[in-house]
Amino acid sequence: MINSIAAISSLVCIITVCSALSSPINRVMIVGGTHGNEYTGVWCIKSLEMQRKKWESKYPSLQLETILGNPEAHLLNKRFVDTDLNREFVVDKLCAIDESLSRNTINQPRLDTVESIRARELDEILGSKCDENSHEVDVCIDLHSTTSNMGTTIIIPEGDELMAQAAAYVSLKCPGSRCLMHSIPERMHRPNLSSAAKHGFTIEVGPVPVGVLRHDAVENTEAALHAILDFLQRVNKGEDIYGYLQDSFPDGWVPCFRTAPAIRPGEISGKIKWPCDPDNPNFPALMVHKSLQDRDYQLVRKGDPLFVAGDGSVVNYEGSHGEEVYLIFINEAGYYYQSSGTGIGVAVESKFDLEYGMLFDFENVDELTYE
Amino acid sequence: MINSIAAISSLVCIITVCSALSSPINRVMIVGGTHGNEYTGVWCIKSLEMQRKKWESKYPSLQLETILGNPEAHLLNKRFVDTDLNREFVVDKLCAIDESLSRNTINQPRLDTVESIRARELDEILGSKCDENSHEVDVCIDLHSTTSNMGTTIIIPEGDELMAQAAAYVSLKCPGSRCLMHSIPERMHRPNLSSAAKHGFTIEVGPVPVGVLRHDAVENTEAALHAILDFLQRVNKGEDIYGYLQDSFPDGWVPCFRTAPAIRPGEISGKIKWPCDPDNPNFPALMVHKSLQDRDYQLVRKGDPLFVAGDGSVVNYEGSHGEEVYLIFINEAGYYYQSSGTGIGVAVESKFDLEYGMLFDFENVDELTYE
Repeated sequence: MINSIAAISSLVCIITVCSALSSPINRVMIVGGTHGNEYTGVWCIKSLEMQRKKWESKYPSLQLETILGNPEAHLLNKRFVDTDLNREFVVDKLCAIDESLSRNTINQPRLDTVESIRARELDEILGSKCDENSHEVDVCIDLHSTTSNMGTTIIIPEGDELMAQAAAYVSLKCPGSRCLMHSIPERMHRPNLSSAAKHGFTIEVGPVPVGVLRHDAVENTEAALHAILDFLQRVNKGEDIYGYLQDSFPDGWVPCFRTAPAIRPGEISGKIKWPCDPDNPNFPALMVHKSLQDRDYQLVRKGDPLFVAGDGSVVNYEGSHGEEVYLIFINEAGYYYQSSGTGIGVAVESKFDLEYGMLFDFENVDELTYE
Repeated sequence: MINSIAAISSLVCIITVCSALSSPINRVMIVGGTHGNEYTGVWCIKSLEMQRKKWESKYPSLQLETILGNPEAHLLNKRFVDTDLNREFVVDKLCAIDESLSRNTINQPRLDTVESIRARELDEILGSKCDENSHEVDVCIDLHSTTSNMGTTIIIPEGDELMAQAAAYVSLKCPGSRCLMHSIPERMHRPNLSSAAKHGFTIEVGPVPVGVLRHDAVENTEAALHAILDFLQRVNKGEDIYGYLQDSFPDGWVPCFRTAPAIRPGEISGKIKWPCDPDNPNFPALMVHKSLQDRDYQLVRKGDPLFVAGDGSVVNYEGSHGEEVYLIFINEAGYYYQSSGTGIGVAVESKFDLEYGMLFDFENVDELTYE
């Protein structure tokens, strides 16, 4: 279905300017330290402010702003103080907290955490999910790092065609980078910080330890950041970026990975969970097996080793997410926390269409094939 | 001077058993989580307890004990709560705190921190520095990890011949490992945890992020741990380990690195300090240059790049510690903290004599050469 629509629409786009690309992008907010101990993004926004004139002269059509996502957690060199800030932006949670606050009295315990309060502050700055008519920031670029070997990964939501095209552009400008698409098309239901703006774009770079600055990770992050700003600048200038992308992806499909659906609280996407140590809920009782370590985006088959236990025994992949899976965020420090969703991420090789940013519907294709 | 003594004494040792090797070692304490977010050691002691019978049958002459160094910091996934526990064991600090405590009244603020209290508890368990006659634990093996590319590094103090021979033995059993000698010969003045026992031995393995378990780092740590326990077991059995070591190091000298002397509070050894961010004392204003990253134990010359600033400018090595230096603990997460001593460690290529564990006195040799 998507195939046919994409084919027809791409013809239209050749002779007209696609609506997504025709709206000028003005305010771009670059966020570092959404997780307080991911220092790469914090360095990048500080460095940008130190070299603001240079950046502004490079992207004159964009109003570049920066913000430290979670200042309190950053000063403590912690991922978060109470709860994962990047899980606070689901509209029900965000707006429900606002309502509950007004009901709070001195006799009732306040339900808000450091991060729920900060989420509301950021939501006001970025666009206010609770007020659908407000879209103050056009694009929010959230800079993350990971201890896993994810290289440069661009994370975008399904169905945002501007960000899909931006990701396609970045993939061309940053060879070796990958795109990971979250399959929560409805912006209001996305839990991540960048979803509070009209368009959200996450740059994830690893491996880099938490609480550490690595020059190579900073350079890779800045390369991806420059690439998306260059894309937005060229869109604003009215250049035929869509034509350029079509030349690069002639069938209209851009290779990507999509995350498996979330099944537990705290998860943005599906995970292979590990059990926790009885003495410490954030210390795993199983350790990622060395044959899996640093092998993000590589195929894992049923029977392959996943974990090692303290007694030396090995736990193999039992096929819980299919006979063959791609694992991502393997041994990510943040996923040691229950609040962030413990375990290893599961991904599926996929592709999205350049025009609508929708994932190819492999399952329905399979169904049709079987009919 | 040391040269001649070593030469004469080694002859004596061939026909007799050296005193250091003749005392049986009984209690061996293995510590994990002295820094709460260094998970490797925590995993190792938990795993040892799960497989206690196996370990005990392998080393029947040793009474193996394990302890979690800083439980409070570990539960918080932090290096420390208030101050670096591995800087709390200088006798003046340790015993002075005890005295000050007795003077505390309700009107005086208590001077003790989470770590100073824990240090006194551990000192009681390990040997009590404040009571020189007490040596309850024979050997304390402290398991550390580092975000820097230090490989397997054995850290021992100068002048402990048993630990020097143990380190020489481990270097043979763990190819590629290195020995780093701290030049604070007097046990009472050493700040590190393992100095509280009669003999202290630190196993440092990297690179591994803080708050993360890496299977390879655990395996390397366990390999070094098995090697020293094997050494102690063989010493207890009365085997001619010294002869074995002499065969391996025929000139009686064991290659090692020694740390440059400490010059600032919090430092165990000399460092090239970086300036801190004005908004966050534990966030560096300079980032380790990519050409230095992961190149621990490699020669750095005057004029080589050390750091990058937020404005993109590069800071070169100006020769503060000599024309040529070996840098260690490059970009170690713990050294982002002022309490642990910020910066990059400086080391000097050296060697120690197998019998006394004393460093070769290059400076005096140089003086003789110039005479």
